[in-house]
Amino acid sequence: MRGPMALVIGGSASPLLSLRLSRALRCGLVRTEVRRFPDGEIYVRVRRDVAGERVIVVQSNGRSQNENLIELLLTLELMKDMGAREVVAVVPYMAYSRQDRRFTPGEAVSAKTVCRLIECAGADHFITVDMHHRETLQHFSIKSNDLTAAHAIGGYLKRLRLKRPLVLGADRGAAERAKNVALEMGADHDYIEKKRISPESVRVSVGGFDVRGRDIVIVDDIISTGGTVAESARILRKNGARTVHAACTHPVLVGNAMEKMRSAGVRRVIATDTIESDVSVVSVAPVVAGTLG
Amino acid sequence: MRGPMALVIGGSASPLLSLRLSRALRCGLVRTEVRRFPDGEIYVRVRRDVAGERVIVVQSNGRSQNENLIELLLTLELMKDMGAREVVAVVPYMAYSRQDRRFTPGEAVSAKTVCRLIECAGADHFITVDMHHRETLQHFSIKSNDLTAAHAIGGYLKRLRLKRPLVLGADRGAAERAKNVALEMGADHDYIEKKRISPESVRVSVGGFDVRGRDIVIVDDIISTGGTVAESARILRKNGARTVHAACTHPVLVGNAMEKMRSAGVRRVIATDTIESDVSVVSVAPVVAGTLG
Repeated sequence: MRGPMALVIGGSASPLLSLRLSRALRCGLVRTEVRRFPDGEIYVRVRRDVAGERVIVVQSNGRSQNENLIELLLTLELMKDMGAREVVAVVPYMAYSRQDRRFTPGEAVSAKTVCRLIECAGADHFITVDMHHRETLQHFSIKSNDLTAAHAIGGYLKRLRLKRPLVLGADRGAAERAKNVALEMGADHDYIEKKRISPESVRVSVGGFDVRGRDIVIVDDIISTGGTVAESARILRKNGARTVHAACTHPVLVGNAMEKMRSAGVRRVIATDTIESDVSVVSVAPVVAGTLG
Repeated sequence: MRGPMALVIGGSASPLLSLRLSRALRCGLVRTEVRRFPDGEIYVRVRRDVAGERVIVVQSNGRSQNENLIELLLTLELMKDMGAREVVAVVPYMAYSRQDRRFTPGEAVSAKTVCRLIECAGADHFITVDMHHRETLQHFSIKSNDLTAAHAIGGYLKRLRLKRPLVLGADRGAAERAKNVALEMGADHDYIEKKRISPESVRVSVGGFDVRGRDIVIVDDIISTGGTVAESARILRKNGARTVHAACTHPVLVGNAMEKMRSAGVRRVIATDTIESDVSVVSVAPVVAGTLG
């Protein structure tokens, strides 16, 4: 009773997610053949006739964002060019999604450009997970979905049996995500507000909660440099938190981000496979499959 | 009596060409401000109100092709978004221009994708120089020009006062370019045909010409690894050529290409500023300005 036959096209940035998605959908998987020309340009080939088929191209844009974005665009256009009936772009983490506004005059609103390029390259349907700001999807005229990994993350955290868990959004913008994670765990939730009182001191307030003796989970959509999490963790630990965990959807994890968080006392970092990393313990395949099935 | 007022927007890959073009057109130059976010994404800003203006975005795609292409696309969309009246994309070397056909089933025709992306990002007019195959321009529905640097290169070579110069296309595909260079120099021309006779031996034929004692110029649109030029130079020298020069429009020059050619006896490599390099002694600014003026 599933939808029409489909085929998952697994891009080079999403080997595991594409496999998991094809299994969840019980459909075929063809991996994109990706090589480099001597001058560094990307070579893309799909060894499968896709004429008339519904193809689901899975290619995240995490790490080497420009390379992964170009590979995505080349693959989408290739699918269209080869006569695919419908091209679904599953881009669990979209490059440039944080540059979604003109913060200063003259700045490129790069998230908008990327949406337009993906559509122009041939996508008929765009699916992402925990977009930095959901409003970014307005730049698509094709069907688009912003799914959330909050429930999957909450389910994973619940099984950790944390002690009097308190789930905190890393900032006000993460409050809703923290709430959804907490609801799944049956835990309390709030968000972190930071006020710089002097150059040396930052006051962290976490609503009405006392963190003493509690296991804290800091939630954000993206962990990039790890700086925000590390700073909060240090203060939460100082204020008596028993443990501090960090959970995010997209483990961008630039440079020594993991080291920075660990040395600030973060016990464990968990993330999803929107960007495939060592801490990607939760898969978004079920939620993506749910939209496509 | 020039056209309407214009403004050159100089991308990070074309600092010299954009300057030269703004001088040739006697119009303003604004350099794109390009930085990197900590995660490696490109930040683009243009500190100038371009509303109602005709802007000429100059951004080559040589070297780090994907990075330079993404910067180009972000800049084009920014110009459109900021209300530019007309956006001209001067992309003297276009990334992926050699992947202009499906050589094997299932291959991405990446040149087509790049054309579509440039148009989609907001270009109203596309200008390039010595496109690998001119037919690639058919993928644009906007106005497009493929200019040639052959005359400028020929003019430069003429001033070198070579001895009984013979201009040879690096292969049959380069025959026409070689002819145009030679006409400017008042030199003979032909093209190189290679036949592998045995695993060890290659026969090079250069039409009816005897190369003994002559100064040879090998002409190609792109010099990438330098392998083709080096191989030909070695044989031409063995056959008695006095000197061998190499001239191209686009000095892609991957890895040790220069070293490879020099050790094969190539006396001098000359190229244009479509890709700005140490051997870019000829500018395409006049020919580009001629189209825009």
